[in-house]
Amino acid sequence: MTKSKAYAAATATSPLALTTISRRDPGEHDVQIEILFAGICHSDLHSVRNEWSEFMPTVYPIVPGHEIVGRVTKVGSSVAKHKTGDLVAVGCLVDSDRTCPSCQEGLEQFCPNMTLTFNSPDKHLGGVTYGGYSDQIVVDERFVVRVPSNLNLAGAAPLLCAGITTYSPMRHWGVSEGKKVGVVGLGGLGHMGVKFARAMGAHVVVFTTSPHKREDALRLGADEVVVSRDANAMQKHAGSFNFILDAVSADHDINAYLNLLTRDGNLTLVGAPAKPLAVSAFGLIMGRRSLSGSPIGGLAETQEMLDFCGTNNITADVEVIPIQKVNEAYERLLKADVKYRFVIDIASLKSE
Amino acid sequence: MTKSKAYAAATATSPLALTTISRRDPGEHDVQIEILFAGICHSDLHSVRNEWSEFMPTVYPIVPGHEIVGRVTKVGSSVAKHKTGDLVAVGCLVDSDRTCPSCQEGLEQFCPNMTLTFNSPDKHLGGVTYGGYSDQIVVDERFVVRVPSNLNLAGAAPLLCAGITTYSPMRHWGVSEGKKVGVVGLGGLGHMGVKFARAMGAHVVVFTTSPHKREDALRLGADEVVVSRDANAMQKHAGSFNFILDAVSADHDINAYLNLLTRDGNLTLVGAPAKPLAVSAFGLIMGRRSLSGSPIGGLAETQEMLDFCGTNNITADVEVIPIQKVNEAYERLLKADVKYRFVIDIASLKSE
Repeated sequence: MTKSKAYAAATATSPLALTTISRRDPGEHDVQIEILFAGICHSDLHSVRNEWSEFMPTVYPIVPGHEIVGRVTKVGSSVAKHKTGDLVAVGCLVDSDRTCPSCQEGLEQFCPNMTLTFNSPDKHLGGVTYGGYSDQIVVDERFVVRVPSNLNLAGAAPLLCAGITTYSPMRHWGVSEGKKVGVVGLGGLGHMGVKFARAMGAHVVVFTTSPHKREDALRLGADEVVVSRDANAMQKHAGSFNFILDAVSADHDINAYLNLLTRDGNLTLVGAPAKPLAVSAFGLIMGRRSLSGSPIGGLAETQEMLDFCGTNNITADVEVIPIQKVNEAYERLLKADVKYRFVIDIASLKSE
Repeated sequence: MTKSKAYAAATATSPLALTTISRRDPGEHDVQIEILFAGICHSDLHSVRNEWSEFMPTVYPIVPGHEIVGRVTKVGSSVAKHKTGDLVAVGCLVDSDRTCPSCQEGLEQFCPNMTLTFNSPDKHLGGVTYGGYSDQIVVDERFVVRVPSNLNLAGAAPLLCAGITTYSPMRHWGVSEGKKVGVVGLGGLGHMGVKFARAMGAHVVVFTTSPHKREDALRLGADEVVVSRDANAMQKHAGSFNFILDAVSADHDINAYLNLLTRDGNLTLVGAPAKPLAVSAFGLIMGRRSLSGSPIGGLAETQEMLDFCGTNNITADVEVIPIQKVNEAYERLLKADVKYRFVIDIASLKSE
């Protein structure tokens, strides 16, 4: 085992603070990674504060972080996919059972026995897994993906969760040239949705409650911006969207968006409002529309997404912070005061 | 024009009563049909009582009925599809614009300019269209389908609405051999869903709130019956259904059924509860599940469905009534006191 510096929360009400954790020595199939950047996902904050206790209670101390970019420092004897010095990334999963139908189809995100990057039982060391707010991590090669060399590394980190979560449903529901795509909510996920939909050739419309986001939405690649409180502006788009990505975690009127779908159009939720959404059956029936949800993506698709980002030079818009500012960043995250993702420069941890 | 006997309601609170209406003389592309049987759909009752006034206000007098089976008595000079003496049927649509993308794809049920069989503007005679509670009807050949000769004619009438409404989403979402299919609500639509899913080779599970429906569900073709109030019985099926047809028009807990879907499973609503359904985002996200709706079907698919019924000898389970009992039947419909569809024997109208 090796010692690793990390930022951990000791209780649901404690700030994140410096600590030391153990990482396993790389086994035959493992890749040891020096972490360079770790994105801050809203789910980090939910887990740290045990806000999802109902279905995923937090075990303390918790080291969050599942948007990890780093460099390979060592590989196990059987590792073929990666070698020392490679730029690699790790997302929300570090293991799965590999035998269930989902794993066999390369859809590890649906494996009933997946190991999450943090706060999941650790098969190797006992206790729970520790995430990316740390200076190194050891992960099975199957769960390590390659980062195209042309990408900005800080901007690449959020691709591992915000990126794949928006890319996957767009591919699944056939976003492509000539399709009209809506993105609801211009935050960490939404801004990636805009970039992907644009790069896939779609006509992209951003829906926002904040008129001041218009310029930024256009800069990110939107063709149009609709202020969702403007009923007339909404009505103009009725029945016209092939696909809408809904990245809003607050309660909102979902029927207003379902009515914008064309026949056989789909709206996919990637934000998860705590309160159930009120869905009108008529809106779905009249256009054979569908409402669905989607979590992250499988490993093969995550690699495909990173390669797509390499080809199209797509990264997240990020604000890079030293790890010492992580608690402050959480407070700003709660106020949506970030464009569009905080990323921790792990060099700041090494110097502590 | 010819005179035709019909049963009409004069106001939202009037009973249906004998009246005389006009039908056009068959034009070049028209088929004149002597109506033999007309099914009673719950939407007949909604329209008669103007309960859908918000989006489809009723024009009085109204002659309902869109599950029509009859025999061709005359055809226009250009009619090639049908000839005098043929057994034919007419469903919910008697015309559409034929030029929109939906019509061009044979999906007339999504045409923005469709003409419904009753209570739609009548292009030929002015006023509104009159439906199947009547001794004859004249319809463009494109909207007239063939009835396989081996089918019981009274039992075939409900295929035109209850049948196609359940058949269409099952085909759309890939119900076939080896799939596990749930049917929620064993009424006019639900009992057709069971028959179709069984004939398509699926493993069929009926969900019902009424334990006394068990035997009937098994007789109709269900492999299993689950009483939906039994949480343990529901839990045993968690994550296992490829497709669920939800034919319940009353408010109900939709999440209990969404959680039964497997990855990428779909639940399609064919009943339309007036109150919005409370949908948990997490349930959709975790399995990339989808919730959708579906209305009737296009003309080509309606013919396909009737041919499928011919091959598999499928008809609705019906209670045949004389038209003089239609008001009583409406009252019984409100109490779900019918197995599973009332069908009017139009011979009873001719003798009035």
